[in-house]
Amino acid sequence: MSDESADWWATSIVRMAPGVVELRGRPVQDLIGSVDFVSMIWLMVRGSSPSTREAALLEAALVASVDHGPQAPSIAIARMTATCGVGINNAMASGINALGDSHGGAGQQCVEVLTEIVSLEDSGIGIDAAASQVAGRHRYVPGFGHRFHPVDPRRAPLLSLVDSAVADGVVAGRHLMAARAVEKYLARVPMNIDGATAVIYAELGFAPELARGLFVLGRSVGILAHAWEETTQGMRNKGPIPRSILPTYRGEAG
Amino acid sequence: MSDESADWWATSIVRMAPGVVELRGRPVQDLIGSVDFVSMIWLMVRGSSPSTREAALLEAALVASVDHGPQAPSIAIARMTATCGVGINNAMASGINALGDSHGGAGQQCVEVLTEIVSLEDSGIGIDAAASQVAGRHRYVPGFGHRFHPVDPRRAPLLSLVDSAVADGVVAGRHLMAARAVEKYLARVPMNIDGATAVIYAELGFAPELARGLFVLGRSVGILAHAWEETTQGMRNKGPIPRSILPTYRGEAG
Amino acid sequence: MSDESADWWATSIVRMAPGVVELRGRPVQDLIGSVDFVSMIWLMVRGSSPSTREAALLEAALVASVDHGPQAPSIAIARMTATCGVGINNAMASGINALGDSHGGAGQQCVEVLTEIVSLEDSGIGIDAAASQVAGRHRYVPGFGHRFHPVDPRRAPLLSLVDSAVADGVVAGRHLMAARAVEKYLARVPMNIDGATAVIYAELGFAPELARGLFVLGRSVGILAHAWEETTQGMRNKGPIPRSILPTYRGEAG
Amino acid sequence: MSDESADWWATSIVRMAPGVVELRGRPVQDLIGSVDFVSMIWLMVRGSSPSTREAALLEAALVASVDHGPQAPSIAIARMTATCGVGINNAMASGINALGDSHGGAGQQCVEVLTEIVSLEDSGIGIDAAASQVAGRHRYVPGFGHRFHPVDPRRAPLLSLVDSAVADGVVAGRHLMAARAVEKYLARVPMNIDGATAVIYAELGFAPELARGLFVLGRSVGILAHAWEETTQGMRNKGPIPRSILPTYRGEAG
Repeated sequence: MSDESADWWATSIVRMAPGVVELRGRPVQDLIGSVDFVSMIWLMVRGSSPSTREAALLEAALVASVDHGPQAPSIAIARMTATCGVGINNAMASGINALGDSHGGAGQQCVEVLTEIVSLEDSGIGIDAAASQVAGRHRYVPGFGHRFHPVDPRRAPLLSLVDSAVADGVVAGRHLMAARAVEKYLARVPMNIDGATAVIYAELGFAPELARGLFVLGRSVGILAHAWEETTQGMRNKGPIPRSILPTYRGEAG
Repeated sequence: MSDESADWWATSIVRMAPGVVELRGRPVQDLIGSVDFVSMIWLMVRGSSPSTREAALLEAALVASVDHGPQAPSIAIARMTATCGVGINNAMASGINALGDSHGGAGQQCVEVLTEIVSLEDSGIGIDAAASQVAGRHRYVPGFGHRFHPVDPRRAPLLSLVDSAVADGVVAGRHLMAARAVEKYLARVPMNIDGATAVIYAELGFAPELARGLFVLGRSVGILAHAWEETTQGMRNKGPIPRSILPTYRGEAG
Repeated sequence: MSDESADWWATSIVRMAPGVVELRGRPVQDLIGSVDFVSMIWLMVRGSSPSTREAALLEAALVASVDHGPQAPSIAIARMTATCGVGINNAMASGINALGDSHGGAGQQCVEVLTEIVSLEDSGIGIDAAASQVAGRHRYVPGFGHRFHPVDPRRAPLLSLVDSAVADGVVAGRHLMAARAVEKYLARVPMNIDGATAVIYAELGFAPELARGLFVLGRSVGILAHAWEETTQGMRNKGPIPRSILPTYRGEAG
Repeated sequence: MSDESADWWATSIVRMAPGVVELRGRPVQDLIGSVDFVSMIWLMVRGSSPSTREAALLEAALVASVDHGPQAPSIAIARMTATCGVGINNAMASGINALGDSHGGAGQQCVEVLTEIVSLEDSGIGIDAAASQVAGRHRYVPGFGHRFHPVDPRRAPLLSLVDSAVADGVVAGRHLMAARAVEKYLARVPMNIDGATAVIYAELGFAPELARGLFVLGRSVGILAHAWEETTQGMRNKGPIPRSILPTYRGEAG
C-alpha cells in the first residue's frame, strides 16, 4: 500500500487508469476532434469550457503574442541554444526560462494593476482617480509604453475585439475601462501588447499569474519557429555576435 | 555601422520597424482576430497557411497531447518547480526541458520510421516487407506500445480523423498505411499517442524534429495547468514523496 | 566596423585574443596549476584573490552545501530529467532551475537579514533589540529552523570555523553575532545550513544574491552525482512514484 | 507503509535521518573543514576519495574551464537571462542548458576517442595506427583544433601537469599518449581545452559522460560571474545586439 504517495500527487486535472485518460472529467477520446485547441487550453487551466466568443478573445491574445523578433532575449536564447547540440525542447525551455518578471511578466503585473483599479472603483472611487492613484505609484506602468514602437500595432486590433465583446455582453468591460483610464492619465503612453492582452485576460477572469502562463504558451510558438529556423541553418555554437567582433575588455591590465 | 550584427540575426520569420510587426510577411494587425491559433502555429513554423482540414488535423494532434498525468516526469517536475519560489515560466521551462529523446522524442523518431518505410516503398519494396525491415531493427519501435495502456485511448479518434482526411484527399495516407503495416508486423503492440500523432505530422509534411516541437506546444498546456494547480495549493519545496517516507540508503555503512 | 556590438558585450571578467585568455587580468596559463578552484571562484566572481583563510571559509560553505538527499526537489528533478533522453547538462540545468526563492534562496535572504541587523547596530541600536526587530517581522526567519532536523548537523562545524576566523582576525564576526542574536531571540530554532553559510558569505563580504549563486555552485555537485547515479541505473522516464501507485483523482466524475 | 516509494528513491550517495546527513557513508560534520571542495566533488561523484595528486589534476581541469568569454553561447545566455527578472539560479540554469553535445560535449566525446585508441592498442595495434584509425573517422576530431586560437593557451599548462603526474606514477599516461598520437596524425591541429581536460578525466578514470558533467561544474563559475556582472549593470531584457541595430529580414515582402 502506498496511499500516502498517491495522495501526494492527487490532482483534479486528470484521471488515469489502464485504457482511460480523462481530462477535467471528460474522456480524451470525446475531446479529440471535438474541442478546438484554445478551448482545450481554457478547459485544462480552469476546469470549465469557454463560450465561443470567450475562446475567440483568448485566441486573439495568443495569436498576438507569438513573436517580437530575435532582439527579444527569449528568442535569441532559443536560437543560440538550438545550435549547441541539444534537443529542440531544450532550446525552447531556455527561451521560456527567460520570460521572467521583466520580459514575460508585464501582462501579469498589468492584470494586477487593472484589478486594483476596478476594486478601488468598487469602493466608490471614480475610475480616473483610481487609475491615477494606482498608475501614479509606478515609474513605468506595466503594460503601457514601448521602447521600440511609438504605437504598438497589436493594440488596436485587440482592443477592437474587446470593444465588440463588451457591446455584445460577452465580458463586462470594466478592466478595459480601467486600462483606458490609465492611458488617459499617462497621456502619450499607449497600451502595448502586454497591456492589451492583460485587458483580455482580466476581462475573461484569469488570475494574474495565468496571464504570464498564457503568454508563455503564445510566445512558445515563435520560440519554436525561431529555434527551428536556426537549426535548419546549421550553425554550431552561435554566440550573440559574429566571431570577428571581439567584446570590449573593461577590466584592468593584467 | 553594424551590418555584420544585423546579418548575424537575419530571419525570414519576422520583420520589425517602429510601429510595424510583420510575421511571415503579414502585418500582425491583419492576423489578430482573423487567423486561428493553430493556423498561426503552422504559419510561423512553416511560412505558409494550412487549409481548414489540414489545420483540423494539426489541432487534433495538439489537443490529444496536452496531458498524461503527474506520473510523467515533465508534469511532476513542473509541479515541483512551481513550489520552489520561481516564476510560472521557470516551472514550465523545467517541465519542457525533460521532453527529451525518450520522453517527448518518440513522435520525432516515429516520423523518421514512417518516412523510411514510405521511402523504401518508393524504391519498389512492398509495404509489409518495408515495415518489417524498418521495425525489425528496433527493440521497441517508437510510437508503438504503451507500458500503461493496453490500448491507448487516443489512438482510435486520431486515426479516424486521418482516415477521413485520406478519404477526402486532404492527405495522401501513405504514412498512415506505413504505421498500420508496423502494427500488423508487431501484432499486439498498437500505436500509442506518439505514433498516432506522428502519422498526422508526417502526413502533413512536418520535419521529424518538428514532431517534437509540436508535441512540446501541446504538452505545455498540461504543464501550465498542473504548475498552476500546484501553485494554488501553496506547498513549499515539494519533493517527489512525502517527507515521512525516507529514501532507502543503498551505500555502505559509514 | 561593429564597435556598438563589441561595447554591448563589454566585460571586466575576461579578455580574449587569438592565443590569449585572460581572466580578471591574469593569463589563464598562470592560473592553471597555481590557483585552487575555490580561490578561482572568488577571483572570477569578485575580481580579487582571497587569503588562504578566507578561501578556507568559502570552501567549507561549498562543501557543506553539496547535497541534502533526493527528497529535495532540485535533486529529484535532476534524477528524473536524466532518465528522459537528454544530456547530463540538461538534467543539471533543470535541478538548478528549481533553486528558487524558497529552495535555494534562503541563504540570500538570510544575508539580507544579518546585514540589516548589523546596519541597525551601526545606528546605535543594541544587537538583541536589532535582532528581535528584524527577525520579528518574519513568520519564518530565513536560515533558521529546519522541518526535518531538530538541529542541522552542518551548523556546528561551520560556526566553529567562523569562530576561529574571528579569533584570528580573518573576519570581523559581526554577522556571526547578529545570527546568534537571532537564535537567542527565536529560542529553540537554531541556524540551519542556509543560516550558517549565510554567516560565512556575509562575513566574507559577498552580496546577498551571490549567496544564492555560491549555493548553486555547491549544490551542483550533488545534482551531478545524483543525475549520474540515476543514469547508470538505466531507468527510462522516471516519474516521482512507481507506476503501480496511481495518483488520487480529486476532480468530479466526468 | 510506503516501502515502494522509499525504494523508488533509493540512493548510495546520501543517508538522511533527523539530525543526520551522511554523504557516501561519511557524516557531513566530518567533511566540513576537513575535505577540500575538489576532493568533495570526487567523493560525491565516484564514492571514493582521491589522492592529493589526483585531486590536483582534477582541480587544474576545473580551473582551466571556468570561462571563455561572452561570445560563448552559454555565457551570453546567462547574461541575457539575468536581465529578464528571474533569479540568478535561473540565469545559470539556462547557460548550463546550452552546454550540449557541440558546446560542452567535446570533452565527453574526446574521452571516448582516447579510450577507443587505448583499447585498440590493447588489442595489439600500434598507437599511431590506432590514432589514425579512430581520428580518421572524424571530420573534426573532438578536443582538437580551435576556431579562435591557433594554439589554445590552456593546452600547455594542463599537459605539463599530466606529464609530471605520469612521471611520478600518479596516472598511467596512456590516454595522454593517445592524445599526442592524434596530434601527430592531425599535424597542425593541436589539442584544445576540451582535449587537454579530456586527457585528465580519462587518465583519472572518469566515465565519458562525467567529462561533460565536470566541465559544467567548472564553467558554472564563469556563468555565475558573468550573470552577476550583468545584474550589477542593471540592464533590462538585454537582447543579443543593441536595439539600434535591426536584424535583416530575409523573407518575402508581405
